[in-house]
Amino acid sequence: MPIQAISWSPSGAVRIIDQRALPEAEITRDLESAESVAEAIRQLQVRGAPLIGIAAAMGLVAALRDHRAAARARFLARAQELAALLSAARPTAVNLRWALDRMVRVAESTPGDGTDLWERLRSEATAIWEEDRAMCRKIGEHGLNILPDGANVLTHCNTGALATGGIGTALAPIYLAHEQGRKVHVYVDETRPLLQGSRLTMWELLHAGIACTLITDATAATLMRQARIDVVLVGADRICANGDFANKIGTYSLAVLARHHGVPFYCAAPWSTVDATLADGDLIPIEQRPPAEVTMVAGRRAAPDGATALNPAFDVTPARYVTGFITDRGVVQPPFGN
Amino acid sequence: MPIQAISWSPSGAVRIIDQRALPEAEITRDLESAESVAEAIRQLQVRGAPLIGIAAAMGLVAALRDHRAAARARFLARAQELAALLSAARPTAVNLRWALDRMVRVAESTPGDGTDLWERLRSEATAIWEEDRAMCRKIGEHGLNILPDGANVLTHCNTGALATGGIGTALAPIYLAHEQGRKVHVYVDETRPLLQGSRLTMWELLHAGIACTLITDATAATLMRQARIDVVLVGADRICANGDFANKIGTYSLAVLARHHGVPFYCAAPWSTVDATLADGDLIPIEQRPPAEVTMVAGRRAAPDGATALNPAFDVTPARYVTGFITDRGVVQPPFGN
Repeated sequence: MPIQAISWSPSGAVRIIDQRALPEAEITRDLESAESVAEAIRQLQVRGAPLIGIAAAMGLVAALRDHRAAARARFLARAQELAALLSAARPTAVNLRWALDRMVRVAESTPGDGTDLWERLRSEATAIWEEDRAMCRKIGEHGLNILPDGANVLTHCNTGALATGGIGTALAPIYLAHEQGRKVHVYVDETRPLLQGSRLTMWELLHAGIACTLITDATAATLMRQARIDVVLVGADRICANGDFANKIGTYSLAVLARHHGVPFYCAAPWSTVDATLADGDLIPIEQRPPAEVTMVAGRRAAPDGATALNPAFDVTPARYVTGFITDRGVVQPPFGN
Repeated sequence: MPIQAISWSPSGAVRIIDQRALPEAEITRDLESAESVAEAIRQLQVRGAPLIGIAAAMGLVAALRDHRAAARARFLARAQELAALLSAARPTAVNLRWALDRMVRVAESTPGDGTDLWERLRSEATAIWEEDRAMCRKIGEHGLNILPDGANVLTHCNTGALATGGIGTALAPIYLAHEQGRKVHVYVDETRPLLQGSRLTMWELLHAGIACTLITDATAATLMRQARIDVVLVGADRICANGDFANKIGTYSLAVLARHHGVPFYCAAPWSTVDATLADGDLIPIEQRPPAEVTMVAGRRAAPDGATALNPAFDVTPARYVTGFITDRGVVQPPFGN
């Protein structure tokens, strides 16, 4: 059984698994305010493009609990303010802004005062979550065909239950194949610098009883040369109109290697990841994260004093490298419009 | 100034910098016996194909100090025994066996008893070290042409002063370019799992005042796509007759990426790295190291309990990806004979 990464606490706070602590500790946190949700997103306690959209929507609801008594105009002003605060937590994934825009639009178009608007927002946040869960399942169903019995899949970062409200995006076809009794084995890129593959993907695959083997990111090429990889399956943080997409740093490397070795390369993402306002990948803002994530490893200095590091969180893979986009609307090809 | 990775201690032991402790601590160790040298090689306190050849030759001399009084036959038998022990410390690099074979041959062809043979071996070990130092410099001179003023070089693992008796192999042209006042900037792959790039290459480049930037291994592809890499420069642990070569895991990945992006890809190594007895790369034995090097990071668990990992220490890059081999005999092309 895949795990559940997010839920409402009994008091209406946002309950998360602190993903920074995995796999050493399983810590649950109840986030009461928009600030604490934004901070959890910034610190990657909650991560994964779909999940941060859900967390932000739920965080908006949790934060507005105390404003239910407010008049319409004041409630709306506060909702917009908090949405802006949450929206600034991370720059690359489109789902964050997509979810918050949807929440604000729904509030604006709902009649009544604070109480009415808040109730509507709570339903909307829950709907975003439930739609995400359904979307994950559809992605899984549409992607099932690319995983014949005995398939060896390579994946990067974490695009599973810990990245979504459901069974994941790129991991969804793997969960469904396993559920249907197909044999599937996953090679998991450890995904430096934050080791989401090692810490999170290995954790949730082992939890679900799916065969998996951890590798360093630079080992993938050799496995492809040895014909040990049947298909590469990755997620996306933002997909442009022409099909160029941003995903965790290292994805573009896999795309080039897969092309070179004739290995099919699929990108799995909910349709909400498409940002048709961007013509191509050069327009995607790429988050630069602190050099210390590279120079320090597990709290210890890996590089000497005075070492500088480049640490882009994402890279852009041009659409021409992608065999197909596995979405909740089916396996599709660009161009994309919303 | 590049640092000095190995020397004789005043009492004739092998003095090394413990490279496992860098960059957190600079620890010098005096290795008194063949067993302690073999253990230091196995544990990667001493690493780098040329340096382990030198360390093994010097270790043989240090270990035979107590056998100087022995008669010829007993001294030779003991020398062969210790050479076999040292030779088994690591399987992939050819320099280890090359240096020990040379030592044993020299002992066998030297007349006299223990004292004579030991003196001859001590000179021979020092000669191997000094030849290596001279070879490094020649590699640097031959490679200088590929580094115009302002060049951005990408390198992998550590192939510098810490890997050799001199200024390194793939880093030698960089040291000489810097010495001649050319501007050169090095992107350093951190080189998971053991972070030799982060821990060692960054340390010695900063020590020498050479501009360098650390990246995770999976970032290289994006830098190539952005035309920020002018040339890739790596070392080799074994080069076959047809030019296929083994080097640190991740090298093959860079070779494919360089080819795809039209970036020149050079392999720098002393001629002693050529093993003409092997026709091609499929015949090179690849050392599989403990999974814990991947599942544990800096002493902390990165992957969950029960996680399995693949951890090949090296990969094989076919000769067709290599723009040129920079050796002490010049920039050459396969096929190679000894």
